[in-house]
Amino acid sequence: MEKISGSALFTDLYELTMAASFFENRMFEPATFSLFIRDYPPGRRYFVAAGLADVLEYLENLKFTPQDLEYLEKTGRFTPEFLSYLENFRFRGDVHAIPEGRLFFVNEPLLEVSASLIEAQVIETVVINAAHLQVMIATKASRCVHAAWPRNLVDFSLRRTHGTDAGMKVARASTIGGFTGTSNVLAGKVYGIPVFGTMAHSFIQSFENEIDAFRAFARTFPENVVLLVDTYDTLSGARIAAQVGQEMGREGKKLKGVRLDSGNIARLSQSTRQILQKAGLGEATIFASGGFDEYKIQDVLSRGGDVDSFGVGTKMGVSADAPYFDMAYKLVQYAGRPVLKLSSGKETLASEKQVFRFKTSKNKLKKDIIGLRDDDFNEGEPLLKKVMRNGKTTVKLPPLTRIREFFLDEFSCLDEKYKTIKDGEGDYPVEISPRLKDIQNQVVRQLRMASKGKTGKN
Amino acid sequence: MEKISGSALFTDLYELTMAASFFENRMFEPATFSLFIRDYPPGRRYFVAAGLADVLEYLENLKFTPQDLEYLEKTGRFTPEFLSYLENFRFRGDVHAIPEGRLFFVNEPLLEVSASLIEAQVIETVVINAAHLQVMIATKASRCVHAAWPRNLVDFSLRRTHGTDAGMKVARASTIGGFTGTSNVLAGKVYGIPVFGTMAHSFIQSFENEIDAFRAFARTFPENVVLLVDTYDTLSGARIAAQVGQEMGREGKKLKGVRLDSGNIARLSQSTRQILQKAGLGEATIFASGGFDEYKIQDVLSRGGDVDSFGVGTKMGVSADAPYFDMAYKLVQYAGRPVLKLSSGKETLASEKQVFRFKTSKNKLKKDIIGLRDDDFNEGEPLLKKVMRNGKTTVKLPPLTRIREFFLDEFSCLDEKYKTIKDGEGDYPVEISPRLKDIQNQVVRQLRMASKGKTGKN
Repeated sequence: MEKISGSALFTDLYELTMAASFFENRMFEPATFSLFIRDYPPGRRYFVAAGLADVLEYLENLKFTPQDLEYLEKTGRFTPEFLSYLENFRFRGDVHAIPEGRLFFVNEPLLEVSASLIEAQVIETVVINAAHLQVMIATKASRCVHAAWPRNLVDFSLRRTHGTDAGMKVARASTIGGFTGTSNVLAGKVYGIPVFGTMAHSFIQSFENEIDAFRAFARTFPENVVLLVDTYDTLSGARIAAQVGQEMGREGKKLKGVRLDSGNIARLSQSTRQILQKAGLGEATIFASGGFDEYKIQDVLSRGGDVDSFGVGTKMGVSADAPYFDMAYKLVQYAGRPVLKLSSGKETLASEKQVFRFKTSKNKLKKDIIGLRDDDFNEGEPLLKKVMRNGKTTVKLPPLTRIREFFLDEFSCLDEKYKTIKDGEGDYPVEISPRLKDIQNQVVRQLRMASKGKTGKN
Repeated sequence: MEKISGSALFTDLYELTMAASFFENRMFEPATFSLFIRDYPPGRRYFVAAGLADVLEYLENLKFTPQDLEYLEKTGRFTPEFLSYLENFRFRGDVHAIPEGRLFFVNEPLLEVSASLIEAQVIETVVINAAHLQVMIATKASRCVHAAWPRNLVDFSLRRTHGTDAGMKVARASTIGGFTGTSNVLAGKVYGIPVFGTMAHSFIQSFENEIDAFRAFARTFPENVVLLVDTYDTLSGARIAAQVGQEMGREGKKLKGVRLDSGNIARLSQSTRQILQKAGLGEATIFASGGFDEYKIQDVLSRGGDVDSFGVGTKMGVSADAPYFDMAYKLVQYAGRPVLKLSSGKETLASEKQVFRFKTSKNKLKKDIIGLRDDDFNEGEPLLKKVMRNGKTTVKLPPLTRIREFFLDEFSCLDEKYKTIKDGEGDYPVEISPRLKDIQNQVVRQLRMASKGKTGKN
């Protein structure tokens, strides 16, 4: 499968035109950029950190191949001097980041990159592309997990994720957000995620009768029989599945479960449970799929749905109710000078920063403070860790199962009121440290004065 | 960059478990599957065909590597006989498809695959994954193009597309839907799409003053100066840009334009135009970006926005108001027997099919008829072409620029009432041919009878 480090040309043209102008103007001073989310999307009041592994891999491998340079030369936009600079270009900067699986909140830097200006600038497009998708999906997945808790969820989204890279990253990020498995076989191989799946409606339809299809599948996979019962009529399908389950029982085998994929799942799951129990198949599980997300899970369960596990597909895999987050990568310091952007009405936070997390005596999350990187708060845990120095990753990244545990542990410490899947009241408290506030005010004042002094000439 | 043909394991597990059971039951008869969209997503009443090139490439290259087979063996689910069948597996079927760039409508098969049952089944996940994204994006892009017509649109979505593959495919599909360029450099190289981009806010901020930044950029790219004017204050930025434009004029150069990226674009673009004209820069263009999609384009233009081109980013690149389409790949025929799925309340259309398109004497699209593949309608153009035989592509696929022209040509023949970007009244007429209707009724009757005869035992 693809590595996002596959091509240095996978970027916005303006990264390269800016680099060329920085190069011509000999602007090589150190710069720091912050990656953060400007607003909560609908219904969300926390984010799950994810995507760091891919960002670091990209930064370690970024280079321009002779073919890349040849293409850039042919565009006629770039000088030979700049192209030969790119030939030797490597990312040699430092990265501080909140580890994958941790919770974070609006305006908190998920990542800060410090490097020579060009190096820190040209990586923008891919850094956002990699982190944005996985944060969005891990956050969406966590909402489904919360709604279904403690039932198991399996990622079924592969067919409608946006392309192949998303297919892989959604499997990974939904695992971080608490899912227990995926239908994506390659994700099973690459990431070690448990893989699930049995049959589609077309399998049933390929046989003359439903019962022939069920029996054939039970012969092929006697240890792993989950029968899809809604191809023609769900309850009639459930009765036929129960009959096959009884036949299996007589041969010393067990029907693992049935899958419902359409209709009124709350009602159908209850009737299906009765059918299974009357047939002596009390241990068979009921697996539901078909258009599920956190809202439909909550709805079905609130109406008494008797479901053991959910297959959660498209709506999770595209984060359907919030298919993008307002994630930005902004210059916060150049040549030792703190900088910020004023124009949008939403000020960005200047300077190199740290996020400090405070807990209550009962181990609940209490508040965060965004401060300067060298701020010191005894009781607050600094969340950003140095993960790369001079272009080399300096930490051993944890395996996916550990990241998932980090997430589930910390999520259990977050107050329920921030986890409601619909818009709730009150955001998790995030303060700005006094020292950061001072610098911020100072820079804003300077910008306002400079802006006044330099306009109105024309 | 990645090829989706990169791994045969990039699929849902159930494709492989079904294949294993078909294999054990010696079910190798010919099957036909249809790819179609079941419903119009909000606001849409047509679709743009796209993604075929990737589907064909995948089918031609699909095979299981020794490493794939090793992983499958380790799962313990599959027999040695089936694994050695997979070792020699190739797709050797036929494909009929509606060419890229053509319009199509609900329930019309975009693609029909005829092959031995296992071959036609296991490709499901990737066929949907590839076609779904590009149809969705080409359709979304066409709506933006319609709202902005005849202004130029440039794809700016790369940073927030869902992963890297989507970054590439969105650039391609938005070109099909009528965009004129992209910011994605690699898409420029791979697909030959014109590439656009100049500077971000961070470029401006890296200089002490806005005017220094503008002058520096003008020195580096004298032929291609589009100045981003909203970093501090848009109109003050526009005046400074005009000043730099006049300086350029004195050196015999031309300011190409300015870019507005925030604020009230309708109002700001008018004021910016005045500033440019007063400075004698009447030819400089105004480029607007920042949260644009078809709705915001329509809004800004309806309020008198004076914009020459739009950069359209995130909301197009994720199809934000409809981030998934209900696209399905369903078995319609097996071993010569037409089949369909009843359960969902939405019948699928059985049998191998063709779509016939009728035009009025004034060259407007009049109606479509979905018929049997061997139906014959003198005046209707059959849309599905045979594009693959025995696993080999049999047609020369047109270049992207031609596909874009196909689209723009046919789109101009579609009645305006089907192009409104909000929900309108009345769908484009799509009929079912009498012979298809007969077969359909017959299969439904048989299924209902079979289903009655075989239930209620338990």
